[in-house]
Amino acid sequence: MADLVTLTTDFGEDSPYVAALKGALLQVNPKARIQDLSHHIPPQDLRYTAFFLSTALPFFPPGVIHVVVVDPGVGTDRAVLLVELAGQRLVLPDNGCWTALADRIPDQPVVRRLTEPRYWRHPVSATFHGRDIMGPVAGHLSAGVNPQRLGEPTNNWMHLDLPRPRIDKSTLTGEILFIDHFGNLITNFTGDDLIPFASDGWQCQLGRRSWRRIPCIYSYGKAPEGSLVAILGSSGYLEFAVTNGNAARLLKLQSGARVVIKK
Amino acid sequence: MADLVTLTTDFGEDSPYVAALKGALLQVNPKARIQDLSHHIPPQDLRYTAFFLSTALPFFPPGVIHVVVVDPGVGTDRAVLLVELAGQRLVLPDNGCWTALADRIPDQPVVRRLTEPRYWRHPVSATFHGRDIMGPVAGHLSAGVNPQRLGEPTNNWMHLDLPRPRIDKSTLTGEILFIDHFGNLITNFTGDDLIPFASDGWQCQLGRRSWRRIPCIYSYGKAPEGSLVAILGSSGYLEFAVTNGNAARLLKLQSGARVVIKK
Amino acid sequence: MADLVTLTTDFGEDSPYVAALKGALLQVNPKARIQDLSHHIPPQDLRYTAFFLSTALPFFPPGVIHVVVVDPGVGTDRAVLLVELAGQRLVLPDNGCWTALADRIPDQPVVRRLTEPRYWRHPVSATFHGRDIMGPVAGHLSAGVNPQRLGEPTNNWMHLDLPRPRIDKSTLTGEILFIDHFGNLITNFTGDDLIPFASDGWQCQLGRRSWRRIPCIYSYGKAPEGSLVAILGSSGYLEFAVTNGNAARLLKLQSGARVVIKK
Repeated sequence: MADLVTLTTDFGEDSPYVAALKGALLQVNPKARIQDLSHHIPPQDLRYTAFFLSTALPFFPPGVIHVVVVDPGVGTDRAVLLVELAGQRLVLPDNGCWTALADRIPDQPVVRRLTEPRYWRHPVSATFHGRDIMGPVAGHLSAGVNPQRLGEPTNNWMHLDLPRPRIDKSTLTGEILFIDHFGNLITNFTGDDLIPFASDGWQCQLGRRSWRRIPCIYSYGKAPEGSLVAILGSSGYLEFAVTNGNAARLLKLQSGARVVIKK
Repeated sequence: MADLVTLTTDFGEDSPYVAALKGALLQVNPKARIQDLSHHIPPQDLRYTAFFLSTALPFFPPGVIHVVVVDPGVGTDRAVLLVELAGQRLVLPDNGCWTALADRIPDQPVVRRLTEPRYWRHPVSATFHGRDIMGPVAGHLSAGVNPQRLGEPTNNWMHLDLPRPRIDKSTLTGEILFIDHFGNLITNFTGDDLIPFASDGWQCQLGRRSWRRIPCIYSYGKAPEGSLVAILGSSGYLEFAVTNGNAARLLKLQSGARVVIKK
Repeated sequence: MADLVTLTTDFGEDSPYVAALKGALLQVNPKARIQDLSHHIPPQDLRYTAFFLSTALPFFPPGVIHVVVVDPGVGTDRAVLLVELAGQRLVLPDNGCWTALADRIPDQPVVRRLTEPRYWRHPVSATFHGRDIMGPVAGHLSAGVNPQRLGEPTNNWMHLDLPRPRIDKSTLTGEILFIDHFGNLITNFTGDDLIPFASDGWQCQLGRRSWRRIPCIYSYGKAPEGSLVAILGSSGYLEFAVTNGNAARLLKLQSGARVVIKK
């Protein structure tokens, strides 16, 4: 599948940037098969990107090339990396957005700094390395160019950790990591974190409000419509949801809000 | 075309769910050619889905596989179906969202319940059957697996009818079925419904407001800019439009609003 | 790459129109490889389309077919064109949205009016020529049909010029041509226009507000976060940006606002 290239950006779909990136990539390898993953990462939001990649990329097969352009540092001397991880290849700026994904995968990543300008588009602009560096490099990779020709290995890169909850005997303190399209509040509590708190309902604090008991259910369909429930979600994290409703809108909570669970 | 798979979901593009679904599908068949139809079905809106599918899918060639994930019942015991219809194949939850499409097509559908877990991704989550069942099954289908291996035929499935207008001698009473991206108000009146009312203008009621005469035109370009017109739209339904404007915004109408036409 | 077809429309992604267009195209050539460029052109906005195409399409390789459906004149007697330009092929309504692109490319375009209904879908609706004419024609082109069979050459087509700035000795007067997804204000000043004004900062007027000196920088990363800067952007135009912020939102400016630079 070396010809399959996915795109994840914060470009939106109203601007011509996705189109220009696709053009520059296809200019190098017109046979590349391009798949959009998302162009709706909030602008420059690296933590959002980190959650996105760590949740979605484990489901892809080896051989796929992922171009990720969320790049607040474009035009500074931040590097551009090629990361090989469990057979997948990521082309992205050195800003840490991929290290939470790597933490979920047992394999060691092989990381290169892209230093060979012969694989780039010229002139290289100062503000659009997606079009001028990352797209063309992905084009060359998808056409079979050996990663070793693109740059030297490095052991030095930025890390970006997703926040971990604080656990003590009777309390679990964390935060809302991500709010999905349905308004589900995805916390940073994993199933493992929750084992000592196993129960069919908890005393919870979400933001400034407290609940005496939020029922824990197994699937959305199992609770009365409109009720607030806790559920171990498909991403492996505990999430709070309003069945067939929008929890974020109803509770007026945003990403980063504090979550406390008590035994 | 057995390798062509389309996706229609209510996942939005900001969450990692579309990406995870694509990954799970490509994991099974890396050669599948995936086309997005929409990820902007309003959350859990089955009637919207029914209109969307019945309007768009008749234009596709035989052999295409359509994955449709609008799934308010995920995690309950609702079935997942494979529907074969005029040579196209639909993989979707048993919630009726495809029966309005079937009503438009003379062929009888062949329907199977997906009961063979060997074609699914494991562990199957309770909240994301798009990734764990429907995507992988579509991957297997696109790789040539015989539908008979995926589950047993059934004659028992959910139906969801789009509302039909009430017709009497001098009055046609219906509703706004769908508001499109341009703000055009698509009613549930077909061309056939309108034959007894044929005219170049009608007395109409849209929501709470009445018009003495809304002109009926043949195409948007034929009316002065900004005027409210009635037109038999490309979906086969009568729609009310403001030429080069947004009728829904101007008239403050929503899907479901009552529409009455008088001779 | 004759099998690669891109789509640029104002259809949005919530309506079934993108899906119907894809179906009609695949009906003709199920092997066509379709890439979305954007379905978020603002409804009927031809100037936006002109900027979009002139900025994105130069990066594509020869042989690609671009279907562009922004079509306020659908249903009037406006023609549908096939434009061959630097080896790329554009299928679009005759409304001028491609001439700003052609002005950037040294080659002469070869333009045909699509007059051969045998390559269309029938019946042709009055309101959806994307599905009934442009999609099917692109399907035939992608399957290898000779452009000469689709219609006769013409020398007569609509032009749509992007506004050019007014330059006098000490003042450059132009406007905001485009506001991108990041809120960057893209003016109609090219690098060439700015040569006489070369400086590391200018006295500027944006809309109704004036600045004594907006610094000119080389890349977003080179200025303190949140500061207003001028930068020669990746599209070749001068843009005003707030580093890691949204200039359009902060300055409450819209496309078309006046911009004045003084020496």
